[in-house]
Amino acid sequence: MKRILILGADGYLGWASTVALHQDGHKLTIVDNYSKRKYMKELNRDPLVTLPKLKTRLTSINKTRHKINIYDKDCTNYVELKAIIKKHKPEVIIHFAELPSAPFSMLNNIYGWKTLQNNIQSTFNVAHIIKEINPDCHIIKLGTMGEYGTPNIDIEEGWLKVNHNGRNDKFLYPRQASSLYHTSKIMDTDLLWFYTRMNNLRVTDLMQGPVYGLCVNSANEKPMESTFTYDDIFGTVLNRFIVQAVAGIPLTVYGSGNQIRGYINIADTIDCIRLTLANTPHSGKLNIYNQFTQQFSVNELAKLVKVSLNEIGINTKITKISNPRIEKEKHYYNAKHTNINKIGLKPTLLDSEVIIDIAKYVLKHKSKINKKIINPKVKWK
Amino acid sequence: MKRILILGADGYLGWASTVALHQDGHKLTIVDNYSKRKYMKELNRDPLVTLPKLKTRLTSINKTRHKINIYDKDCTNYVELKAIIKKHKPEVIIHFAELPSAPFSMLNNIYGWKTLQNNIQSTFNVAHIIKEINPDCHIIKLGTMGEYGTPNIDIEEGWLKVNHNGRNDKFLYPRQASSLYHTSKIMDTDLLWFYTRMNNLRVTDLMQGPVYGLCVNSANEKPMESTFTYDDIFGTVLNRFIVQAVAGIPLTVYGSGNQIRGYINIADTIDCIRLTLANTPHSGKLNIYNQFTQQFSVNELAKLVKVSLNEIGINTKITKISNPRIEKEKHYYNAKHTNINKIGLKPTLLDSEVIIDIAKYVLKHKSKINKKIINPKVKWK
Repeated sequence: MKRILILGADGYLGWASTVALHQDGHKLTIVDNYSKRKYMKELNRDPLVTLPKLKTRLTSINKTRHKINIYDKDCTNYVELKAIIKKHKPEVIIHFAELPSAPFSMLNNIYGWKTLQNNIQSTFNVAHIIKEINPDCHIIKLGTMGEYGTPNIDIEEGWLKVNHNGRNDKFLYPRQASSLYHTSKIMDTDLLWFYTRMNNLRVTDLMQGPVYGLCVNSANEKPMESTFTYDDIFGTVLNRFIVQAVAGIPLTVYGSGNQIRGYINIADTIDCIRLTLANTPHSGKLNIYNQFTQQFSVNELAKLVKVSLNEIGINTKITKISNPRIEKEKHYYNAKHTNINKIGLKPTLLDSEVIIDIAKYVLKHKSKINKKIINPKVKWK
Repeated sequence: MKRILILGADGYLGWASTVALHQDGHKLTIVDNYSKRKYMKELNRDPLVTLPKLKTRLTSINKTRHKINIYDKDCTNYVELKAIIKKHKPEVIIHFAELPSAPFSMLNNIYGWKTLQNNIQSTFNVAHIIKEINPDCHIIKLGTMGEYGTPNIDIEEGWLKVNHNGRNDKFLYPRQASSLYHTSKIMDTDLLWFYTRMNNLRVTDLMQGPVYGLCVNSANEKPMESTFTYDDIFGTVLNRFIVQAVAGIPLTVYGSGNQIRGYINIADTIDCIRLTLANTPHSGKLNIYNQFTQQFSVNELAKLVKVSLNEIGINTKITKISNPRIEKEKHYYNAKHTNINKIGLKPTLLDSEVIIDIAKYVLKHKSKINKKIINPKVKWK
């Protein structure tokens, strides 16, 4: 049992982690200011199902185990976040309290700066408060594989050994992202590595690929739904494709579709969190894991959805549309991801069964799908 | 003649550039919100001479050439900065509007975040506005050699070619700084490189070493003083040593004194600005220059001051004090700096004449020296 503070507990991953770690018997304090809900509302984007706020959702899971403390607070407020940390003395902080969308960050200068400010300031606050109060607290931060971009060399896990003019050194792997959101995550990493070096913090950075799937519950309790988005701004690609298929509209592949990324099932994300909880870094050490299980091109994903859903009688078309993003569409991509397996991850591989499971959830809510929020409205140029 | 917008014109470099580029016949618009003055006041630090604000200083140089437009505005205000850029249509923006102090950024969470926010937001605003209004405008940004830290390999000029597992790519040179201030400059570079790639901007990043010296005026006009600071928070090392010598107190070397950095005379800084003005990058190109002329260890600098000032009858002691910073005190340091020479810089080398010139200025104001603000009060730990 650990005392764990979860920042950003209302989100897709935040809520799934809350449920899982509560079931595991940890003592949780959770925080969210619902800013993502606020921005989705501003932009007329809704998740597939609008879930109640944390307090209401907690009533159904809050009886049998440790009581969960809950705060409606903004993690960019130093004083308030410090008060929470002082009071609850977490041994671990899991930091999900970031604005997570590339298109959101590229929409205009206001959302662009908001993404930079929210993500950098919340990370700064966590690191600075922990330095002040308890440098032994383990900070787990969600990074993204998008920080690496698409370099022409193998992507290592966080670090790169360089031999140059006959001398050697080891650096953070070069990062070069293709949105302001991903750039904000590069800055997060820089900040955390700074505080780790300077103040001997213990930090884990999970460089995560795009996530898909449902928050499935391994225990006896009913599955606890996590926010499922499928729109052009907040949705991730595989979930969006499945919604398009269920809604009977073509899957929209951006550009050539040869863009390759590493993907992960949300069930594995939760297992990765569990595994990193059990593997506290040494003092002054930044552990970096590339947190994905399989590489796919967008074309491969689209085909997999088409073929899988055909098994349950859904006929799907795939269409290529002009890429709203600026990104390489033909590129080398070979990213290592063995560190997380070494500490025990048993990957959930993507197959038709997984896709059909997600589609069944979406089918249950088919009437709620808003087809108007799927096609990309935000253009990089 | 170019239309040039100078952001942060009240500072040590900002004012020196304003005077020089005005004399060169450029048409200037200058901006400052005097925030550095405000923070110096809050922290009871004064420059050697408190200069009048820009409007007053401009009266003495504003008659013969192009009228200088002047704004008391905050560059972190997107709307106001955009209005200035829309109105004056600069062909070049020189961005000095950053909080420049490592100790300031390490004082507490408030100044730490202020440094990150001010520096990242002003850079974000410049890049985003230029993207929106005129991507052809040349952005010249002052970076710092401190972004590179003290790696165990040669420091190249901005970029590093990497061969890894038989494949090749070129990246921004790995950056790893030893203060929040320097980290904010790493983030600036990431942002500018992002916008350069995405929107085909034209950007020059001047990775400058610690600056010393006076704002000397090559034309017939009287030298126009620039703010000269010597305190523990805003002063740079050589200027501070000279003030200590003149005040008859020992030069305080932090730690072993074996820390090596690349230094530059402010006269050369101005020439570098002139040279980069004449060398506009191609569209989509980020030009990076390591802007320093000589490497010295802190011990070498202290000895040079001692020996030089002995020539004019000033006897100086050197004392080593516990290093308030966290930095390597014994390290490899070999930084390239040929790019700026290739486009024409004739370096002003540091010798006893230069040091005596600075000392003469300080001697003139000897009675104003406040000995209490020189010893370091800000500790990294």
